[in-house]
Amino acid sequence: MSVTALRINGERLNRMLQETCTSWGAFEAPSTGMCRLTLSAEDKHVRDWLVKECKSLDCVVKVDQMGNIFAIRPGTAEDKKPIGMGSHLDTQPAGGRYDGILGVQAALEVLRTLHENNVQTYCPLAVIDWTNEEGARFPGAMMASGVWSTESSTGLEACWGTQDKQGTLMKQALEDIGYLGSTPCDYRENGLQCHFELHIEQGPILERVGKSVGVVTSVQGMKWFAIRVTGVEGHSGTTPMPDRSDALVTTSRLITAVRDVALRTELGVATVGVISSDTSSQATIPAGVDFIIDIRCSTDDMVDQLAKVIFEAFEDIIKAENNGTVYEVKRTWGLPESKFHTSCIESVRTAALKEVSESQIMDMKSRAGHDSAWTSRVCPTSMIFVPTKDGISHNPNEYTSPEHCALGAQLLLNAVLHYDEKVSKGEY
Amino acid sequence: MSVTALRINGERLNRMLQETCTSWGAFEAPSTGMCRLTLSAEDKHVRDWLVKECKSLDCVVKVDQMGNIFAIRPGTAEDKKPIGMGSHLDTQPAGGRYDGILGVQAALEVLRTLHENNVQTYCPLAVIDWTNEEGARFPGAMMASGVWSTESSTGLEACWGTQDKQGTLMKQALEDIGYLGSTPCDYRENGLQCHFELHIEQGPILERVGKSVGVVTSVQGMKWFAIRVTGVEGHSGTTPMPDRSDALVTTSRLITAVRDVALRTELGVATVGVISSDTSSQATIPAGVDFIIDIRCSTDDMVDQLAKVIFEAFEDIIKAENNGTVYEVKRTWGLPESKFHTSCIESVRTAALKEVSESQIMDMKSRAGHDSAWTSRVCPTSMIFVPTKDGISHNPNEYTSPEHCALGAQLLLNAVLHYDEKVSKGEY
Repeated sequence: MSVTALRINGERLNRMLQETCTSWGAFEAPSTGMCRLTLSAEDKHVRDWLVKECKSLDCVVKVDQMGNIFAIRPGTAEDKKPIGMGSHLDTQPAGGRYDGILGVQAALEVLRTLHENNVQTYCPLAVIDWTNEEGARFPGAMMASGVWSTESSTGLEACWGTQDKQGTLMKQALEDIGYLGSTPCDYRENGLQCHFELHIEQGPILERVGKSVGVVTSVQGMKWFAIRVTGVEGHSGTTPMPDRSDALVTTSRLITAVRDVALRTELGVATVGVISSDTSSQATIPAGVDFIIDIRCSTDDMVDQLAKVIFEAFEDIIKAENNGTVYEVKRTWGLPESKFHTSCIESVRTAALKEVSESQIMDMKSRAGHDSAWTSRVCPTSMIFVPTKDGISHNPNEYTSPEHCALGAQLLLNAVLHYDEKVSKGEY
Repeated sequence: MSVTALRINGERLNRMLQETCTSWGAFEAPSTGMCRLTLSAEDKHVRDWLVKECKSLDCVVKVDQMGNIFAIRPGTAEDKKPIGMGSHLDTQPAGGRYDGILGVQAALEVLRTLHENNVQTYCPLAVIDWTNEEGARFPGAMMASGVWSTESSTGLEACWGTQDKQGTLMKQALEDIGYLGSTPCDYRENGLQCHFELHIEQGPILERVGKSVGVVTSVQGMKWFAIRVTGVEGHSGTTPMPDRSDALVTTSRLITAVRDVALRTELGVATVGVISSDTSSQATIPAGVDFIIDIRCSTDDMVDQLAKVIFEAFEDIIKAENNGTVYEVKRTWGLPESKFHTSCIESVRTAALKEVSESQIMDMKSRAGHDSAWTSRVCPTSMIFVPTKDGISHNPNEYTSPEHCALGAQLLLNAVLHYDEKVSKGEY
C-alpha cells in the first residue's frame, strides 16, 4: 500500500494506553489518576514492557546514561540519524493517563502500523522515553532531555547526584531498576535527525475555541527560584506576638505576593507548588521555610521582568515586617524560551491538513515545558497538541478523548512520513 | 542533720544534666542544641540511666502503660501516696538542655541529697519522667500526663494508635524501647499526693524584671485546630492566574490572618508551627494543604474569643478569594486553663523565701503547657520557674545559668519537705 494511506489503529492505541496505565501506577478505580514516579517499580514495569514491544517490532533498543530509552527501527538509508518520536512515561504523584504517556504510546503505535504494513522508512525511526520529565521525584523537570541536549546547566554528574526525598541518588535509582545504560547521554554521540512529540495541550484553549489540533511553534520561557526564609525559633506559648521573627508568616506574605504580582502585571504565570518548614512541632515558631517559585512567560525577557517585580515586592514585605526575618534565593534553574523549526512545523501542519479541515487547526505556543524544548536547541523539533478536557492536567481528572488520542497518533505518523520523504529527497 | 538544713549539690546537678545531654541527643558542639525525640534511641538511653540511678538510691521503679516512669522512694508512712516531682526528658527536634530535663534532673538530685543524708520523708517521694510532653514525634503535647489524669479527650487507646511521620504506632515505639509498662496509666490506680515541677520559664519576664523565682499559680488555656485547605490541582504553566483554585495561596492568606488577628486583638498568642502540602511538584498548583493553629490565652474564654475572631477572618478571606478553595477544621485538641493549688503554691513560696529575698520572687502564670496542667486537675500541683536567657526556648540556644538551675533544685527540695511536713501534721 502507499505510505500516504497508512492508518494507525486507534482502538489498539487507546486499549494499550489504558491497559498499561491500569497495570502500572493507577490509582484505585473509579479514579483514573496515576502515580508513576520516575524510576519507581511502576516505571520499571512499563519501561520493560515498552522495550519488549519495540523488540518485537524489530527495533534495536539503546539505553543511555540517564536511562533514556531509544528504540530504533532501521530505515533504508544507512547514513541517516533517526527521526525521533519522544515523550515520557513518568507522571506526577497525582497525575493523569495522558501527559507524556500518550506521546510514547502513539509513537509505538506508529511503529506497529509501519511494521504490520511492511513499510520501511528512509530514515531510521526512534521511539524515545525521556527519563524524569516531570521532575516530581528527582527535582529538575525535563532533566534527561536537558542532559542529552548538553544545553541544560545541570549536567550528567549533577543529575546523577540529585536525591529524592528518601535520599536515594538518581544514579542509584537508575541502577536499581536496571536502566543505567552505557550509551552516552549526548546528542553529539547519539543524535536525532529531528524530534516530534505528540502531547495533550494541558490547557483549555483548543477546547474553548473548538479546535482539535494545535501546531506548536514554541515553548514559553521558564525559571524556577528556590527560596529560603529564615527567622528565629521560639516557643509558641511564651513568645509575645510583637517579639516574633516567624519565618512561616513571612513566607505566607511572600507567597501571597507571588500570586498578586502575577495576576496584576499579566506578564505570565507564577506558582508556588512546593513548601516545607524545618519545624514539625505545633508549639514552635518556625525558623526556616523553603519554597520554590515557578515563573513562565511568553519570552525570556518577560520572565525576567516578572521575577524582578516579584522580588521587589519581597523587599517591600521584608522591610514592612521588620522583624528579623530574611530570605535568600538558594538556587535557580531555567528553561529558555524555545522556538520550533519551520521544517518540523510544516510537517505537522501538512500532517494535520490531511486529516481535518483547516478550521480545526491552530498554531500554538506551549505554556508547559516539554522535552521537545531541549531537543529543539540541537535538532529540528515540533509538537502536536490535542485537546485536554477543561484544561485540567497534573491531576487524576486529566482527560483526552480516545478520538483525539487516535487523531494525534495519526498526525504523528503523517508528520514523520512527511519529514522522512523530504529528507529522502534532500529537501530537509 | 535537721531536714531544714539540707542542701542540694548544685555542681553535681549541673554536671549530670550536661553529661547526660551530651551523651544522648546532643547536637554537634559548639551547639548546645538537643534532639531527643520521645521514645527514640536517645530517649531510651537516658531513661535507662534514670532508672539505674533511681534504683541505686533504693527506689522502686514502676513504668506505666504510656511509658511514664515513676521512681518511688519509700516514706515512713505506709498509707500515703507519693509526693511527685515530675517533668520530662524528651525535647523538640531542635530544642535545648533545660526545658523538661532540668525538672527531672533536679528531682533526682533531691533524692540523692536525701539519700546521702539518710533522711527519710513521711510520704514516699516519686521522681516522674512523663512521656511525650513535647508532642514533637507523636502529635499531642503533654500526652501521657493527659492520659494519667483521665481528663484529656485523647485516652490510652487513642494515644497508642498515634503515628509518627514514619508511620510507627506509639504503642509499638513504647514496646521497641522496652517502656510499654503494665502499671495502669490512671491516677486512680497509681496516684500522687501532689505534684511539683521545676521548669525554666521559657519566656522573658523573670529576666526582664530582674527576679530569680517564679511561683506558678496557673497555666493558660490552649487550643489547637488542625485545618485542611482544599483547592483544585492544575499545571503551573498552563492554568491562567484568574482560573486558579490554589490551596497554598489561600493557606498563606489564612496564616497571615492568624498572625494579624492575634496581634491586633491582644487576646493572646496564635501560631502556625506546622504546615504540609499534598504536592511535592513545583509544576503543580497545590490542591491540599494542612496546618495547625496553636492558640493560647490567659483564660478559656479568651481562647474561644480569639479562635472566633480568627475564624471570622477566615470566612472573609474565603469569600474574598471566591475561587473555589475551602477549608475545614479537621480536628481540635485543647488544654483547659489550669489553676494551681493553694497548698502547693504556699509550699513553693515558703521554699523560695528560705533561699532568696521576697523581691526576687514573683507569682506567675505559665504561658506554656506543662504536665503539671494535667496533674493539677486530679491532685494538688504547683510549679517553680527559673529564668530563661532572652526568653528563648524550643531552640538550641535555650539557656539557664547553673546558679539558677541549682536554686531551682534547692527550692524543689524545700517545697517537697514543706509539703511533707504539713501532711505529717495533718495540715494538708
